[in-house]
Amino acid sequence: MEHISGGVCAPKGFKAGGVHCGIRKNRVKRDLSLIISEVPASASAVYTQNLVKGAPIYVTQRNLADGIAQAAICNSGNANTCNADGEEIAWKMCELTAAQANLDPRNIIVASTGVIGQPLSIEPIANGMPALMAAVNGNGSQEAAEGIMTTDTRLKEVAVTFTAGGKECRLGGIAKGSGMIHPNLATMLVFLTCDAAIAPQMLKKALADNVKDTFNMTSVDGDTSTNDMVCIMSNGVAGNAEITAEGTDYDAFCEALNEVTSTLCRMIAKDGEGATRLLTCIVKGGKTVKDAKLAAKSVVCSSLFKAAIFGADANWGRVLCALGYSGADIDVKAVDVTFRSVKGEITVCQNGASLPFSEENAKEILLEDEIDVLITLHDGDASATAWGCDLTYDYVKINGDYRT
Amino acid sequence: MEHISGGVCAPKGFKAGGVHCGIRKNRVKRDLSLIISEVPASASAVYTQNLVKGAPIYVTQRNLADGIAQAAICNSGNANTCNADGEEIAWKMCELTAAQANLDPRNIIVASTGVIGQPLSIEPIANGMPALMAAVNGNGSQEAAEGIMTTDTRLKEVAVTFTAGGKECRLGGIAKGSGMIHPNLATMLVFLTCDAAIAPQMLKKALADNVKDTFNMTSVDGDTSTNDMVCIMSNGVAGNAEITAEGTDYDAFCEALNEVTSTLCRMIAKDGEGATRLLTCIVKGGKTVKDAKLAAKSVVCSSLFKAAIFGADANWGRVLCALGYSGADIDVKAVDVTFRSVKGEITVCQNGASLPFSEENAKEILLEDEIDVLITLHDGDASATAWGCDLTYDYVKINGDYRT
Repeated sequence: MEHISGGVCAPKGFKAGGVHCGIRKNRVKRDLSLIISEVPASASAVYTQNLVKGAPIYVTQRNLADGIAQAAICNSGNANTCNADGEEIAWKMCELTAAQANLDPRNIIVASTGVIGQPLSIEPIANGMPALMAAVNGNGSQEAAEGIMTTDTRLKEVAVTFTAGGKECRLGGIAKGSGMIHPNLATMLVFLTCDAAIAPQMLKKALADNVKDTFNMTSVDGDTSTNDMVCIMSNGVAGNAEITAEGTDYDAFCEALNEVTSTLCRMIAKDGEGATRLLTCIVKGGKTVKDAKLAAKSVVCSSLFKAAIFGADANWGRVLCALGYSGADIDVKAVDVTFRSVKGEITVCQNGASLPFSEENAKEILLEDEIDVLITLHDGDASATAWGCDLTYDYVKINGDYRT
Repeated sequence: MEHISGGVCAPKGFKAGGVHCGIRKNRVKRDLSLIISEVPASASAVYTQNLVKGAPIYVTQRNLADGIAQAAICNSGNANTCNADGEEIAWKMCELTAAQANLDPRNIIVASTGVIGQPLSIEPIANGMPALMAAVNGNGSQEAAEGIMTTDTRLKEVAVTFTAGGKECRLGGIAKGSGMIHPNLATMLVFLTCDAAIAPQMLKKALADNVKDTFNMTSVDGDTSTNDMVCIMSNGVAGNAEITAEGTDYDAFCEALNEVTSTLCRMIAKDGEGATRLLTCIVKGGKTVKDAKLAAKSVVCSSLFKAAIFGADANWGRVLCALGYSGADIDVKAVDVTFRSVKGEITVCQNGASLPFSEENAKEILLEDEIDVLITLHDGDASATAWGCDLTYDYVKINGDYRT
């Protein structure tokens, strides 16, 4: 598998673009994005488990009931959530896209992100649609990625190649997500494209299995958004024999999917609101995968530990504390904890108790911008990885006055 | 019921005190406290549900197995948790206290709070014990409250009177707690004293029932500590006929207990690490009490909403979002949300959708230091209250470098 450039436009037969249509007052920031496949594609999506769901979620769920889509439209600056006319507006976005691109409106994926509870006017979207259509092109992935960003500071884009049925296939993705990141079964906004031929039911299975180990193991602030969605369109333009069952080709597809999604998870966690460090918690020796996952996620979710990491403080007691309330079935007297970065690694806790260690050495390791917390539970052979970030002044600043 | 001064020394037959013995380097801060009853008292405690438990928790559990205690010793500056010799040290604290006060060491409640995973030397405690005993007196509640504080900025003390069996009884308490506050069945360090005669099993029931609605509904940062404990000693010196069953006297006792514990909850939440505002979420119209509790607690735990409250931003979308992922069974299309403070109240969401409101007016209300969030679910008649605080720069500052 090889990483390539091009994001969602890397797979054959996909075009994308993004423009500023006027939902945001800031004229520099693009706020409307479009991804189009030249032919109808197998498509699937997973959605937020929040009971309060953005209106576009309901419309997309209906549109994807047949497992087919051909385009995805997304605005930033307004979540179109908790609005009385929300679904009407979201459907209108599909109709406008379909009219402009000569597609069936029921083949459109629609998404919105931004402030909750403010009516979304269709006007700027309707007015901006011709410019958006004109902007769409085979190199437009970056512009599309920009158009879906909110408090993100970095563009999130990735693509890989893989082989199925002897044909080179490509899978690419863009994502937004910086705050309100604590997905449960689905997460954030992630648009994935692929040119492999794969049956809708196999695509659905691959995506559903994948998010459990990737987006569902990522947390910035413990808040599960109302508008989370990960969607994928796979259009078959690569010319491989359609993947209709498990086997070598399906495995190659899943491997490529995991490479793209786990890369996006790291990008999202590292760009968590206010974050200065990417935190990766790797748990080994768990009794079951469920226990390992609970343990890993509890550590990256602990406000106290996240603040300690901001301060480059090797406060491993907070790791033990987070393991203890995680709900995982673990023997707390058997836990080892090691901190690691490019500067080296240092074991700070063995058998659940303190080890003498050099605070100076630990500080040097923790001052890096990517920190791994390695936890061994000595209780079995299950493992899990979770991604998070530190808790900083800027998280508070960003969220203390988000709306104004 | 009347509030009175005196804290844990308000009930008859109790003395208390606190000194600096040298566990903390800061010589101004007291770090060792003692509460003594002149006679053996009915006693009960509830403990942290964290799998990683402080060593004093195990020793106290054993000592309270018979429902009797006569003193409580507590140090700050070191949690005596994740230490190989922890239980030995905690038991030594009981023995030293017993020797000094001429008591049975099995009648001592022991507790520790501070950094996890650093060995606790018995030396400063042994050396400080005579001075501590000399400092104990009938007006020493404040000194005892000071001795158990860590990052607390305010002393937490309360006492009330009530009548049982025609006798005036008194119930008082002190507490510490500012960070790592997200109790599950028990919480923080709270020492309660009472001079009513009450059978151990009734005391146990009263305390266990009470914490579910008070400390378990309080959260500062979502981290459940390893050393949480709420304990009570009731010594019978008031001379009432012993409370041995439910009835009028038991109800009066429970009412006094609830007044003291809910007051301490408000004090703890308001003094949350870095907090500038007390956040009280009152949910009404829930389908069940469980649903109302899940809803209320989810709102006071949302990092995003807490940051918005720091910024006095009426971002009610984050309230809806937190309700949506709370796990409560609610109809999100029926939710009303009102913000209230001494400056008035303003309804910002009705039937799950936005209401036009004056941002200026909302800001004025939210700039006060005690904010109520009133949520009506229109789904039944269950209600619940939860206490929390805002998320501020200072929370990050305090926890970014706690150990140094």
